[in-house]
Amino acid sequence: MKLTNRNLVTIDDVSNDEMEALFCLADDMANSLDSQYGLCQGKIMASLFFEPSTRTRLSFEAAMLRLGGRVISAVDVGATSLAKGESIADMARVVGSYADVIVIRHPWEGAARVVADYAGVPVINAGDGGHEHPTQTLCDLYTIRKQRRTLKALRIALWGDLRHGRTIHSLIYALARLGASILFCPGPGLELPEHVLRRLSTEYKGELRRCANLNQGPERELFPIDAVYITPSSPHQLAMLPDISVRVELKAGVDALYVTRLQKERQAPTVEQQELKKKYPVVDKELLKGKEFAKTLVMHPLPRVDELACEVDSDPRSMYFKQAAYGIPVRMALIAILLGTRDVAISREYNSFAQKVEHPVYKRDSGVKCCNTNCVSNQETETKYMRPEFRIVSSEPLTLRCIYCEHELHAKYVASSDWHQGKLENKKYHSANSHWARKIKPGNLIIFASEDEAQAQQFKPSSYVTR
Amino acid sequence: MKLTNRNLVTIDDVSNDEMEALFCLADDMANSLDSQYGLCQGKIMASLFFEPSTRTRLSFEAAMLRLGGRVISAVDVGATSLAKGESIADMARVVGSYADVIVIRHPWEGAARVVADYAGVPVINAGDGGHEHPTQTLCDLYTIRKQRRTLKALRIALWGDLRHGRTIHSLIYALARLGASILFCPGPGLELPEHVLRRLSTEYKGELRRCANLNQGPERELFPIDAVYITPSSPHQLAMLPDISVRVELKAGVDALYVTRLQKERQAPTVEQQELKKKYPVVDKELLKGKEFAKTLVMHPLPRVDELACEVDSDPRSMYFKQAAYGIPVRMALIAILLGTRDVAISREYNSFAQKVEHPVYKRDSGVKCCNTNCVSNQETETKYMRPEFRIVSSEPLTLRCIYCEHELHAKYVASSDWHQGKLENKKYHSANSHWARKIKPGNLIIFASEDEAQAQQFKPSSYVTR
Amino acid sequence: MKLTNRNLVTIDDVSNDEMEALFCLADDMANSLDSQYGLCQGKIMASLFFEPSTRTRLSFEAAMLRLGGRVISAVDVGATSLAKGESIADMARVVGSYADVIVIRHPWEGAARVVADYAGVPVINAGDGGHEHPTQTLCDLYTIRKQRRTLKALRIALWGDLRHGRTIHSLIYALARLGASILFCPGPGLELPEHVLRRLSTEYKGELRRCANLNQGPERELFPIDAVYITPSSPHQLAMLPDISVRVELKAGVDALYVTRLQKERQAPTVEQQELKKKYPVVDKELLKGKEFAKTLVMHPLPRVDELACEVDSDPRSMYFKQAAYGIPVRMALIAILLGTRDVAISREYNSFAQKVEHPVYKRDSGVKCCNTNCVSNQETETKYMRPEFRIVSSEPLTLRCIYCEHELHAKYVASSDWHQGKLENKKYHSANSHWARKIKPGNLIIFASEDEAQAQQFKPSSYVTR
Repeated sequence: MKLTNRNLVTIDDVSNDEMEALFCLADDMANSLDSQYGLCQGKIMASLFFEPSTRTRLSFEAAMLRLGGRVISAVDVGATSLAKGESIADMARVVGSYADVIVIRHPWEGAARVVADYAGVPVINAGDGGHEHPTQTLCDLYTIRKQRRTLKALRIALWGDLRHGRTIHSLIYALARLGASILFCPGPGLELPEHVLRRLSTEYKGELRRCANLNQGPERELFPIDAVYITPSSPHQLAMLPDISVRVELKAGVDALYVTRLQKERQAPTVEQQELKKKYPVVDKELLKGKEFAKTLVMHPLPRVDELACEVDSDPRSMYFKQAAYGIPVRMALIAILLGTRDVAISREYNSFAQKVEHPVYKRDSGVKCCNTNCVSNQETETKYMRPEFRIVSSEPLTLRCIYCEHELHAKYVASSDWHQGKLENKKYHSANSHWARKIKPGNLIIFASEDEAQAQQFKPSSYVTR
Repeated sequence: MKLTNRNLVTIDDVSNDEMEALFCLADDMANSLDSQYGLCQGKIMASLFFEPSTRTRLSFEAAMLRLGGRVISAVDVGATSLAKGESIADMARVVGSYADVIVIRHPWEGAARVVADYAGVPVINAGDGGHEHPTQTLCDLYTIRKQRRTLKALRIALWGDLRHGRTIHSLIYALARLGASILFCPGPGLELPEHVLRRLSTEYKGELRRCANLNQGPERELFPIDAVYITPSSPHQLAMLPDISVRVELKAGVDALYVTRLQKERQAPTVEQQELKKKYPVVDKELLKGKEFAKTLVMHPLPRVDELACEVDSDPRSMYFKQAAYGIPVRMALIAILLGTRDVAISREYNSFAQKVEHPVYKRDSGVKCCNTNCVSNQETETKYMRPEFRIVSSEPLTLRCIYCEHELHAKYVASSDWHQGKLENKKYHSANSHWARKIKPGNLIIFASEDEAQAQQFKPSSYVTR
Repeated sequence: MKLTNRNLVTIDDVSNDEMEALFCLADDMANSLDSQYGLCQGKIMASLFFEPSTRTRLSFEAAMLRLGGRVISAVDVGATSLAKGESIADMARVVGSYADVIVIRHPWEGAARVVADYAGVPVINAGDGGHEHPTQTLCDLYTIRKQRRTLKALRIALWGDLRHGRTIHSLIYALARLGASILFCPGPGLELPEHVLRRLSTEYKGELRRCANLNQGPERELFPIDAVYITPSSPHQLAMLPDISVRVELKAGVDALYVTRLQKERQAPTVEQQELKKKYPVVDKELLKGKEFAKTLVMHPLPRVDELACEVDSDPRSMYFKQAAYGIPVRMALIAILLGTRDVAISREYNSFAQKVEHPVYKRDSGVKCCNTNCVSNQETETKYMRPEFRIVSSEPLTLRCIYCEHELHAKYVASSDWHQGKLENKKYHSANSHWARKIKPGNLIIFASEDEAQAQQFKPSSYVTR
């Protein structure tokens, strides 16, 4: 099958139908766990965790061992050669020569992409900073599918820290692609990042609607919803829905309430954070009494802290411990497929609600850098060998998406590599939003982070530079 | 056999005869180490060590691997999700869904009990704070049995830090149950904790005698003994023994001298500790020249520091490295039995010198907490889902033993849940030691930690409150 | 074969011909990696890393797993019983009773020797402080042999930190023994330690020549060479070579350029170190344009920092990632041989260019200590059971080499155990360099670290004490 020898860096690396095939295999494996032993005999998985983790690491390792494979593992950056100043690329090349498959967790966003680029063996992203955590999303979707028997036409509410949770970001893209309706219920100040919202509204076929005022007024019977994303698979076009209808629609029932904890470790511990913690919304018995939650699966990627009350644990709607347990068959299936020790048939069952766009690539060494300080492309050990690389995802305004961490930036100044050939005095730069700029062919485009940068490269301001 | 799917949290979880059966299996396994490979094929052990350890962890892991099983392991609290504020119960549930058996070491007393309560798979306590370390005791007893061919009528001297050593506590209960005589030789200020002494004198059929003055006077030929515990299996009743006879009896020979190091890590490092270190009693060639040690097995759970001189290493009486090596067959046998991959026959050979008492349970939410700050039931992450729980081990004075850490506390104020039904003004509390208090049926008993607590729950002082 | 049940503590533990046999087996294994699975089934390797490492540890573990064996591992001194004050000897004895082979990395020089002395199973040194790292050397030589098809008559340039690199020291002895010519190209202040130089010039059959001025004057076309070591296998005797000829000879080509990074972790981080880092020589495309490097293998033990430019990675001469990958078959072969699960035939192909000298041993408890503060024999936990031990490697001046870390010291004062028998007033000590001192038979020699030490042991100064 097509998945053999591929990587799983983002959830987009696997299509809806491939996911369905993987889940079928996971079902098989869960039903005959013992007979999978031997499937990966003689194979070695490298389990590289440069950030704290118990469950994800142990889950991957247990999955590999249940397949009869073996594991070498490195935990914590302090005990590794990265502390000696080694680059991720070097590490990837070396470990890739020891192991047959690599599982990597790393605090830098985009790190898993770099490992995949250099390892020479299949790489699975087990979380790269705040970027993605695609196997968690696979376990999440597998849990829903197991209970609901389908992944079509889902209504999913996402609860808590939508800003920092990589788990959430992977899940959102997968849900949007599957044509789900998504309700966003963030804690205060923990709304989805702009780049995720933008991507939702430009690349998936649904519609995003803010509904901050949904719960104001005398009727506050609904749980707090910040925004709604609805794909055409749902019976109504969002545009046609007044707020009141959203409420009616929601009351029809939420398939899953996906709770996440405050991602403390992605923030500086401050006084504000203490405040945030106090205001963090809690899912408890009381909340779950709402009609819209009558048949809702309560989910959580774990570990939880206080955002999901222990009193809910014994509720039959609670799925989070099952969700963790499903990590074993899902990861077993994934590893077996990537290593090519199990083949799967892929049927065409699911539509994709994502627009497949091949954005042009921008990788000139013109001084533009990813704006995310936590991006792998901005780290001292990595800049020695890699240059920033972007996809041009929009021309108006001119928007670059980092290929590593997928953060976006708006280009301010541009030039053409065509014009200045000939006379030196023609080497000019323009404002990115000028009509002149839009005429530059993508292949000729030069993008500057600032006017200083442009001038440092001997370009002069054109009349299309607005200040 | 009955041990399958059980837990080993305290040494009391296995009876004398079950222990004998386990040791027979360990003998078998030691004799044909290679042919055990395959016995646990396809099984996974989770090895969770939230406190420093080499030998115990490596010993468990090696044992599982020699059985053909596999291991997933997490070391150190810093690198795990517990650092994210997760409860032990959550961790246990998740890891229990990955592994077939869990081995846990944790700094909190009673932590292994909680893991056993929630994991859903057999749990082995590899040391929980200063509470217990039952597999060490199994290795200790196996070593003695291997050399002495029986565990009956033993005379064992315990040396060093009897206060903080969990190893020592597990061993004492096992020895008492087996009917051994125990000589306590603590370092200064390192005597057995009160709750262990109390338990010895109330639940086992022997007699405890302080003999602080045993070595005073002109004759100081004996090593320093603080107390003696003698069970009826020994020829003399302790009550009949004057001090001088104890000395005569002892000179007849000690079967094993069990040395322990100062448990630095359970104490704040202070000036006093430095002092303690200097005064800590040392076992060396000179001491072992005593007649009573002529055939004594010199034992130590290791690691040792200075309390056992290296000059003793080559002495044929030294058993400590063998003792460590026996950890492999003993733990192999234990794992195989708990996983049900080997069955054993249990004969009736040993008497138990412990009184099997079913103490009534007290688990009302009345404000009484375990007095041990290191108890799992007092930790912030755990109080969210668990309430304190005790056994009422004595009524005069009213004594509660924490079911987690087994520390004891004396109840001060009580009430009855029966009396105040009816009129509110009858809701009264009494001193626990009043005769009125003793009339309350265990099922109706309410226990308060303080008068404030009682009054906070709308109880008023009765005339049976002494101040 | 003779290697079964032996240790690999220093590269001298394996002869040239044994090394060749090991490399042949590694070739076999690399060619049929999958069919090696099962060779070490049921065997356990203990992987003990008390210093940061990724690649070496993972490489050893992957090698063992590919042989079908199992691994128990301990990483980092913080999480182990060594933190409780345990000696290395105790740890070795215990782990030796769990595992069939031990791999040890430790920050103290000579630690691996101690483990080998006490473990009772084969021990492999995976790096002991700045002392040796023999398996790295095996991988290095295997890489060269793989590319050059022989290890005879090599010309190898060593680049960078020659002072602190254990890798370098093991490699130098192996090269000298194989009859290679070695060019030393240290960074400023990072020249080879004296004891390594001395050993080169006394125990191997070649000649060492400083050539600090080689590159002065108008012609600076050569890379910076500090010293040259040439064995008789090369066409010219070094003594006959004027500087100019060295340059001519070198231009004929270097077989391998072995680059090492600055060993930060072996030095206090200081301002000077920052300076050092700036001045550290870099290998880049420009340097490799030199004629002498036209066919040179560019090697590095990894991890690298800045001393080897990433632009070289795609150069076909770059061998460092292959070198890392070869770690698997080389270590597989080594483990299989030491465990006796594969037999190899040893032919007589290589000459040894080392003089096999059996130096007399000195192990009196006379107060002489190894002068290396990082030597295992100087550590508080170890002095309890071990005494310093030396080989007398030269009598003029009287030179002792520590058997643990191999650092050397010059004895200052000596006496004879013969003379003072009889009259006490004859108990006299002498200057080590007096002619009287030279007459003392090695068996009678007493060596003092200082006059104070001599006098403390009731010796009086003789007239052969110069001040």
